[in-house]
Amino acid sequence: MTPDIRITLGDLIRNFGGELVGDAEIYISGLGTLSDANPDDISFLSNSKYRHQLADTRAAAVILGPQDCDATDMPRIVTQNPYAYMAKVSALLHPVVRPTPGIHPSAVVHATAHIAPDAAIGAHAVIAEQAVVAAGAVIGAGSYVGAAVEIGDASWLYPHVTIYAGCKLGQRTIVHSGAVIGADGFGLAPEAGRWLKVPQVGAVVIGDDVEIGANTTIDRGALEDTVIEDGVKLDNQIQIAHNVRIGAHTAIAACVGIAGSTVIGQHCVIGGAAMFVGHIHVVDGVTVSGGTLVSKSIDIPGTYTAMWAAAPHREWLRTVAQLRRMDSLAQRVRELEEKIQENERNAK
Amino acid sequence: MTPDIRITLGDLIRNFGGELVGDAEIYISGLGTLSDANPDDISFLSNSKYRHQLADTRAAAVILGPQDCDATDMPRIVTQNPYAYMAKVSALLHPVVRPTPGIHPSAVVHATAHIAPDAAIGAHAVIAEQAVVAAGAVIGAGSYVGAAVEIGDASWLYPHVTIYAGCKLGQRTIVHSGAVIGADGFGLAPEAGRWLKVPQVGAVVIGDDVEIGANTTIDRGALEDTVIEDGVKLDNQIQIAHNVRIGAHTAIAACVGIAGSTVIGQHCVIGGAAMFVGHIHVVDGVTVSGGTLVSKSIDIPGTYTAMWAAAPHREWLRTVAQLRRMDSLAQRVRELEEKIQENERNAK
Amino acid sequence: MTPDIRITLGDLIRNFGGELVGDAEIYISGLGTLSDANPDDISFLSNSKYRHQLADTRAAAVILGPQDCDATDMPRIVTQNPYAYMAKVSALLHPVVRPTPGIHPSAVVHATAHIAPDAAIGAHAVIAEQAVVAAGAVIGAGSYVGAAVEIGDASWLYPHVTIYAGCKLGQRTIVHSGAVIGADGFGLAPEAGRWLKVPQVGAVVIGDDVEIGANTTIDRGALEDTVIEDGVKLDNQIQIAHNVRIGAHTAIAACVGIAGSTVIGQHCVIGGAAMFVGHIHVVDGVTVSGGTLVSKSIDIPGTYTAMWAAAPHREWLRTVAQLRRMDSLAQRVRELEEKIQENERNAK
Repeated sequence: MTPDIRITLGDLIRNFGGELVGDAEIYISGLGTLSDANPDDISFLSNSKYRHQLADTRAAAVILGPQDCDATDMPRIVTQNPYAYMAKVSALLHPVVRPTPGIHPSAVVHATAHIAPDAAIGAHAVIAEQAVVAAGAVIGAGSYVGAAVEIGDASWLYPHVTIYAGCKLGQRTIVHSGAVIGADGFGLAPEAGRWLKVPQVGAVVIGDDVEIGANTTIDRGALEDTVIEDGVKLDNQIQIAHNVRIGAHTAIAACVGIAGSTVIGQHCVIGGAAMFVGHIHVVDGVTVSGGTLVSKSIDIPGTYTAMWAAAPHREWLRTVAQLRRMDSLAQRVRELEEKIQENERNAK
Repeated sequence: MTPDIRITLGDLIRNFGGELVGDAEIYISGLGTLSDANPDDISFLSNSKYRHQLADTRAAAVILGPQDCDATDMPRIVTQNPYAYMAKVSALLHPVVRPTPGIHPSAVVHATAHIAPDAAIGAHAVIAEQAVVAAGAVIGAGSYVGAAVEIGDASWLYPHVTIYAGCKLGQRTIVHSGAVIGADGFGLAPEAGRWLKVPQVGAVVIGDDVEIGANTTIDRGALEDTVIEDGVKLDNQIQIAHNVRIGAHTAIAACVGIAGSTVIGQHCVIGGAAMFVGHIHVVDGVTVSGGTLVSKSIDIPGTYTAMWAAAPHREWLRTVAQLRRMDSLAQRVRELEEKIQENERNAK
Repeated sequence: MTPDIRITLGDLIRNFGGELVGDAEIYISGLGTLSDANPDDISFLSNSKYRHQLADTRAAAVILGPQDCDATDMPRIVTQNPYAYMAKVSALLHPVVRPTPGIHPSAVVHATAHIAPDAAIGAHAVIAEQAVVAAGAVIGAGSYVGAAVEIGDASWLYPHVTIYAGCKLGQRTIVHSGAVIGADGFGLAPEAGRWLKVPQVGAVVIGDDVEIGANTTIDRGALEDTVIEDGVKLDNQIQIAHNVRIGAHTAIAACVGIAGSTVIGQHCVIGGAAMFVGHIHVVDGVTVSGGTLVSKSIDIPGTYTAMWAAAPHREWLRTVAQLRRMDSLAQRVRELEEKIQENERNAK
């Protein structure tokens, strides 16, 4: 479906910078890993530990860093950030094909909704009253845009996205299928052995250039809003509870859960399946390892971890048993200490 | 979209009880936290540790407990359960607006389905054969109600809910978007290196006043039913496997997984991301901490925990290494014990 | 909805083998557990530890292994694999009822899509350009089949499945509601404090006889494809990242996450909520316990574990505190060792 694109190494340099070592007239038409590239592909080396793969690649050229420049004789583009350079080349070779503007005849658009003329509304999409879909936005097939929702310029909902009433998305924000934005937060007041529902009257406010993965859920706030700042990247199956705030340009891997009212700073990197308790504050620039439970506020940037790695089953059972035996070991050490003291006293 | 509502403190007392200290004629028209309330808002103090915020709030009045009554001079409602009182005030100020009854022309309703005249069926919803949607129920846009499903009075499916054939929901039950009720349980019989599918012929039976969060999944039973009793509250992205039973008025936070045939008692509180193995039984009144794996039945009410909290990365690595060294430490203690015994024998 | 089926024990033997002890003319019309079976049901004993339940069952007959054959006098079918036998009997008693072939008038099928005449396309389904739906396949209500997607013979998408452009499913593959196949992988290149999106231009390729649970997500590859081999069984709410490969006949329980480019071998069994870091390789025949984080490649078949089981809260806190005290305990052992050496020197 992607149109065929061919480009010379010289044109890449003109578009994206970098230093060319080799023939500027070489054409490339694709991108591949060092091990799988075709003869018309450009490849890339972003981690020097794979440098040995340069010897066997069939690629026409390679993008690499200055530290690897002398590791091959093949045509190459030298840049400080080969991985970002690769991303730009890939975007050039694989341009996003936006759907034709217009409202599919099967879509249900409320008379009071405002749809920009160049927006694209997919088959069976539903746009509720007072919703606004701005210029160039794409609403995927079967997606639901609730009452008074605002979808900013050029944002893109893939099929089967649900946005509850009153939520706002910025510009160029991408939401993948199955994501649910603005469902009620989990607000319950116990009374006489039952749970009273606490109305969730805030919304979700999402900035520009955000990406939200498949089946991720972001709950609306209880009284104020849940906020996702500009440039945040969320992977699949993340759960963000009510009144959470995620700082700009923070990236969160899949299966992470963030409990209510927790604030994550800017430029954080959160590993997969990490969990955050509620009502804590994590400063800017924190990295959390995968599988780690964060139970207290983090005030100092750095990397934080709590994870046990898989071991052969018997070995793991022994480890657990050892920890259980610590009580008795500590007791034996106490007894040894007393015995020695006693012996020393007796020896005098 | 919510109509403007103004009410006096005196009317709140008449509706919900409590003791008023201050002018019964004061009007409030909103609800806010102590730190963010507007001058027309009522606020609340449900945790005495935030008592200092009373000094600076702009709220017109505050709901608080007797222990905090003397901590402020502002107009106040004194009640034993300020959080539940707040929930009731919020429900009064933010009444749920139910959609207009009727079947949207784009909905597909099977001729044999029974839809109560005052039910509301949203755009592109699909109601299969023999399904029953009772009085006052709401089926959100694009939701799917399978064959012979029963949706009780005043229950509400948000957009994009899926209910497989034969499942039953009670009255006033809420299901948020993306939830899937009644998909096949994970029943597999190994035979000759392959997996035979075990037909899942039970259903899911859900009681009254249940709430089910976004993208939560509840599998149908293998032979008997999976059961969610009255008043259970499930947050987002919870996985409930086949033949599980959740006791009445149990609340489960997001990202919890419960494996097959496990029974959770009534009035339990399960923290986020807790995991339960299959075929166990948890008695009434158990609290499980977030991130905790429950691997055995729990017979005694109380709080149960297994979670390691995030530490700075190097500190965590040292902790792990220490546990690994326990074997050698225990060996050294054994040697010390022997040495001392030997020395004592020699000393005689 | 299932038609009434009655069959004799003799017919079961003729269909599925096994040895009959008892009257071949006994009819059964259902299947139940030992404790819940009706008098017309056949039951099964697949775990000898439930042997005592044979005494009280109301079932007409029972399927059991040779080791349990003498534990009852009731009519019984003796087989090496009672659980697999039960699965076959259940499939016979509960035949899958496939929807009537044809395209529902409310479905939106692109003119260039190819739908086999005996495929069934549900209400409000959307089939995009160049997609292929093969013979006997079922596309559930509201499901989305993207451009150039291929759905193999007799495969079945339940309602609200999303398949992004270019993905391929084999034959007899089942996908449950809310599953999202082929959303973009989480590919990001950091540049100047922002994240550049790395285009995800691979697809997802899924084999034959695969089953994919509700709300499971499988991301498309970055450059090459994400691959799910034949016979793989995935439970609900599993996250499979870009460029992962799952080997044939591997079964993965709910809530598992597998990070990018990881390869899982054939015939593995992965417990619920297990997590795999990216770029590792797990050989064939590995079992991973529930809740276990796999952080390194596994080269040797066997069972691998890292999980802490819930304990009463105070007991758990003591365990954690003990591990924290290991540093000082080790120090005290060192001091004891030195003291004894010193005492021995002095004693000479």
